[in-house]
Amino acid sequence: MANEIITSKNNDIVKFLVSLSDKNVRQKSGCYLTEGKRSVFESFEEKVATQIIVSLSFTKSKDYSIVKSWKLPVTVLSDAMFQHISETKTPQGISALCKVKKYDLQALLNEENAILLLEDVRDPGNMGTVIRTAAAAGFGGIIASDGCVDVYNPKVVRSTVGCLFKTKIIQCKGDFLNISDEIKHKGFRLYAAHPRGGKNLFDTEFGGKTAIVLGNEANGLSNGMLKQCDSLVTISMEKGVESLNASVAAALMMYEVRRKK
Amino acid sequence: MANEIITSKNNDIVKFLVSLSDKNVRQKSGCYLTEGKRSVFESFEEKVATQIIVSLSFTKSKDYSIVKSWKLPVTVLSDAMFQHISETKTPQGISALCKVKKYDLQALLNEENAILLLEDVRDPGNMGTVIRTAAAAGFGGIIASDGCVDVYNPKVVRSTVGCLFKTKIIQCKGDFLNISDEIKHKGFRLYAAHPRGGKNLFDTEFGGKTAIVLGNEANGLSNGMLKQCDSLVTISMEKGVESLNASVAAALMMYEVRRKK
Repeated sequence: MANEIITSKNNDIVKFLVSLSDKNVRQKSGCYLTEGKRSVFESFEEKVATQIIVSLSFTKSKDYSIVKSWKLPVTVLSDAMFQHISETKTPQGISALCKVKKYDLQALLNEENAILLLEDVRDPGNMGTVIRTAAAAGFGGIIASDGCVDVYNPKVVRSTVGCLFKTKIIQCKGDFLNISDEIKHKGFRLYAAHPRGGKNLFDTEFGGKTAIVLGNEANGLSNGMLKQCDSLVTISMEKGVESLNASVAAALMMYEVRRKK
Repeated sequence: MANEIITSKNNDIVKFLVSLSDKNVRQKSGCYLTEGKRSVFESFEEKVATQIIVSLSFTKSKDYSIVKSWKLPVTVLSDAMFQHISETKTPQGISALCKVKKYDLQALLNEENAILLLEDVRDPGNMGTVIRTAAAAGFGGIIASDGCVDVYNPKVVRSTVGCLFKTKIIQCKGDFLNISDEIKHKGFRLYAAHPRGGKNLFDTEFGGKTAIVLGNEANGLSNGMLKQCDSLVTISMEKGVESLNASVAAALMMYEVRRKK
């Protein structure tokens, strides 16, 4: 049976999909959108997709038959309507409505040996790149403070390039220092990325359960968090350079842990 | 003597500053704009700034007396006009008109032992982050193919966070394969960042003059360039992750060279 093609901005589904660009709607509904073929296929494989949204043009592509074989509800929008719900200028014509996966902090801390703690990381591009790199480096969990950009923000989702589902992410509501205390009690050592005065990253040994702690792009880590950390780690830089991009610093720290495991 | 305050979009200086967002104007004039306090102060220290542009509000800040002590021409714009020439939503009220520094390829290749070759890197954020990381990692030269985003693009300049002047950059016009040939003849070994099948980065030795070669974000290196390279180097990734962000891959490669020097 042919799908109905939605052509109106006033359609309830279209209105709901557009409203998901609002963080509050995402949090209330527990839903978010992911866009583009690679990301949608990953969301299906990881079983977080609940509905597929395609443009009329996409229904003529050979990928559409794969999408239909998934036995998920499929909504077809006119190309204009797909552009309307899309966050990109030249959309690929395929999106998935996904359910936020909820993880239990205690279980995550028991299962994983390398995690990332993010305190107030604000830039969506950085957040997405950090998630992508964590997945690549084998960091099984990311715990983000309440002050971080929402990881289901469309720009973040896009920057993860399909890696959003490949590491367990917990967005905290409570006091981040209490949570970091819990993490320490579970046997993790906390290593803070700090622009100066810490131990050289190359000389740092990482043993046992390791948490890399990354702060805000402009202000770094709070004093409270710095005090919680077991070691300050500094990436050597040439004279005159003040700092590295946050996602680059995170990558160098995570891959140093990967190397030394 | 008080500066005249420019308040009109039709003023010739304002029109010229706005026109610098166009790559062709930048290339013809050999000029570009850098914006924000840190970047402008760096541009003065590195002697590339030829004129300082401030907003009326900025003239009331204590930094303005420092700027005036530089003995460079200062143009004062009304806050509305500064916003008009600015690429950011909430400008800091200070920009510098800079001269593109020209470097000689042969001299650069004689002087430097660690350089970066960029083939068709297109994303301005990636390009800026790569330049910033190169400066931090002690890579003294960057040679960019004609297909790369212009490094004086305002978004690139902003992403370098004041590091644009801390490494020598040559934007090539000619055939990039001929240029890479010249680089090899100067004794450089070319190491290609390649997503799969290369030697593990952690096990790669870098001796003598080293060139890290990075390709386009979507397509990687061209076959011609891959053939030119002495070694293919692969960053290990967890199963299911296809690739890293280009600026992350570049950072991991450059810091591996820094570690092993």
